[in-house]
Amino acid sequence: ESGALSQVSRMLNHTLSSAELGHLLESSPPHTRKVLWELLEKKKQSTILPFLGDDLIADVLRDMSAEEVADVTSDEDIDIDDVVDILQILPERVTQDVLNAMDDQNRQRIEAILSFPEDTAGGLMNTDTVTIRPDITLDVVLRYLRRHESIPATTDTLVVVNRKDELIGLLPISKLLVTDPSITVREIMETDFPRITADTPDDHVAQLFEREDLVSAPVVDKEGRLLGRITIDDVVDVIREDADHSLMSMAGLDEDDDIFAPVLKTSRRRAIWLGINLLTAFIASAVIGIFEQTLDKVVALAILMPIVASMGGIAGSQTLTLVIRGIATGHIRQNNLRWLLSREVLVGLLNGLLWGLAVAVAAALWFSDPKIGIIIGTALIINLVVAVFSGSMLPSLLKSINIDPALAGSVLLTTITDVVGYFVFLGLATAFYSFA
Amino acid sequence: ESGALSQVSRMLNHTLSSAELGHLLESSPPHTRKVLWELLEKKKQSTILPFLGDDLIADVLRDMSAEEVADVTSDEDIDIDDVVDILQILPERVTQDVLNAMDDQNRQRIEAILSFPEDTAGGLMNTDTVTIRPDITLDVVLRYLRRHESIPATTDTLVVVNRKDELIGLLPISKLLVTDPSITVREIMETDFPRITADTPDDHVAQLFEREDLVSAPVVDKEGRLLGRITIDDVVDVIREDADHSLMSMAGLDEDDDIFAPVLKTSRRRAIWLGINLLTAFIASAVIGIFEQTLDKVVALAILMPIVASMGGIAGSQTLTLVIRGIATGHIRQNNLRWLLSREVLVGLLNGLLWGLAVAVAAALWFSDPKIGIIIGTALIINLVVAVFSGSMLPSLLKSINIDPALAGSVLLTTITDVVGYFVFLGLATAFYSFA
Repeated sequence: ESGALSQVSRMLNHTLSSAELGHLLESSPPHTRKVLWELLEKKKQSTILPFLGDDLIADVLRDMSAEEVADVTSDEDIDIDDVVDILQILPERVTQDVLNAMDDQNRQRIEAILSFPEDTAGGLMNTDTVTIRPDITLDVVLRYLRRHESIPATTDTLVVVNRKDELIGLLPISKLLVTDPSITVREIMETDFPRITADTPDDHVAQLFEREDLVSAPVVDKEGRLLGRITIDDVVDVIREDADHSLMSMAGLDEDDDIFAPVLKTSRRRAIWLGINLLTAFIASAVIGIFEQTLDKVVALAILMPIVASMGGIAGSQTLTLVIRGIATGHIRQNNLRWLLSREVLVGLLNGLLWGLAVAVAAALWFSDPKIGIIIGTALIINLVVAVFSGSMLPSLLKSINIDPALAGSVLLTTITDVVGYFVFLGLATAFYSFA
Repeated sequence: ESGALSQVSRMLNHTLSSAELGHLLESSPPHTRKVLWELLEKKKQSTILPFLGDDLIADVLRDMSAEEVADVTSDEDIDIDDVVDILQILPERVTQDVLNAMDDQNRQRIEAILSFPEDTAGGLMNTDTVTIRPDITLDVVLRYLRRHESIPATTDTLVVVNRKDELIGLLPISKLLVTDPSITVREIMETDFPRITADTPDDHVAQLFEREDLVSAPVVDKEGRLLGRITIDDVVDVIREDADHSLMSMAGLDEDDDIFAPVLKTSRRRAIWLGINLLTAFIASAVIGIFEQTLDKVVALAILMPIVASMGGIAGSQTLTLVIRGIATGHIRQNNLRWLLSREVLVGLLNGLLWGLAVAVAAALWFSDPKIGIIIGTALIINLVVAVFSGSMLPSLLKSINIDPALAGSVLLTTITDVVGYFVFLGLATAFYSFA
């Protein structure tokens, strides 16, 4: 029994990499997770932190004292930008305690990065840059590098700075290796590269890395002085989180949430989303309620009305998803949104005509009443056009008032397509049947 | 007029990078896009191809002869894996023509990669690997490298192979630069790294790169012989596409589709999705139709019934999204799905009790009828539990019969929550009111 346990413990501590352990913990239900965590050595625990989600890190650090957290995050195997990420998860008061418990050098380096918002280039960067001067020869560079014990991971370029620490060029290591060593850095350094300042939003940084196939890039302050560098591994996280954010937010979920959070925590988070949607469902019901008398007369209307609302919801959410993704990738901007809007409205109209006709024929045959066919067909066309129009406009409208379109867009859109769907369908029916 | 045009043309051809031009074309409506494309020089056009989406590449290549395509794709500025991606977009017959029009060396290299499926490590790799032997000193390696005119982009490690071309180790360039040049490769090469074979699925490759913070990794055949290497820039594309795929598929969209496709093309693609959803809406209506007599008696039921169906849809799609994403990232597997399922059912039940009670009170007050409150509250609880159960189970069920859960999941789920929602609510009402 205890032999088996120590075998498991040995495997956890010595066979699996920190990344693999992080993945294993993220994939484990709470109870298993707790057992695994306690089998890990202190030293190993700290190297796993960067591979855990925000929720898990908060759970793990909750039971530690500020000194213990400072100790864990001062481990030299953890990159400084990962330490910053971890500290940002803690409550501000605790962060300050942890910083106070660190040695001076560590604290200063971390405070420098902490001063930038998490979602900017400054918050994403690392300070472990290898810098060189422009007027030395490559031979000197090679000898200078050989004096190092190691070069930071993902170093594909050396950063060339002048006496004032201003960024003036980049020397790709691949170039360093194939060029005559008697040539100076200045002669072969690259000067045509994108400038990233500390306040550049992280999604812009990600777009830049993706577009230019970068592995690392220097970050400068407003005066052009070197602050640090961003590496592709952190950018990959931004790309992944950014794409996941759209998907998860549209269902009212948070991409940072622990998948295996316990029942009560999960229920509380979901309850809010369901409550908001309940409100919109009641609004739709209130609209239906206006037409109580018509519904009382023609029961077929009650049977058919969900079709109009549901088709509007589907068409609208297609457009909404397209536009939210297009804005996130930078493909959709103010100047081409108008073209897109008219395209979408035309697409909505064409599909409205197609499926409106189909529904009209089906409904007329079902209830042997051509009138109800005309009513539902017309309502469907109108709701589809309104749906794609709303789906196109909502994201940039919401963005302009600083509301996340991925989060609020789908709720608002469903409210619109439900209200319009029921109102137009039942309204048309009331008009038609009271004439009759 | 013509002066301004030639200025624009100059800017396009000489100021913007291929990546920027690709982004510009992707963000332009069809007409603008055509004008821009024609202003580009032939040579520039070919370097942009790797930065375009599948839809656009197909559009561009449609008007070219096989010889022209061969010419464009033989451009030495395009990576061989990008050429393969482009060829895979073409109809198979055309691909063969293009290959025949290439010179022998190019054709053989491309056919080697084409023989692997697009979504495997083999289809993702490049063949431009720098290999070295284990028994030479680092000094020899450095001199060997200096004989090259250039080293392939994103080379962070040299690949160590034996006489049989079998992969035996990796020499990180960062290690090469800091180590005593008289030491041999074998003494410092890394031997503990993940082995990627040509048939490894691309999403596994992406997970590996993400987890281990890799910049490049060698690919071997079943016998361990080196075939090529995968670089992070291509893996970033896989990560982006993989995450986008879930989002877009859940709305019935294809992540490879051109955002600015013309009206007719877009309408046709959307029409199919709307048609499928129309079918499910009719199924829901048919269920409502069963209870025509009850609806005729109690009109309040028609007013309230969308609430039950809609809340089920929302709760179910939260679970569905969570599970689809969890399976894609590898966090959810068969062994922890059971835990997740019971958690979700409990969450559904708790939220069902909470909001069921709220809806019951609201409905009872609205229609001054406690009976209708009990009916809708009970129906809501049942539908929420069914919804989260279906949301948890559908993805792995669909996957086991090789249907994409992101694409089919949401349609199936809505059908279930609509049918169950209407059936339970109206069924309960029929039972209750016929007793009365």
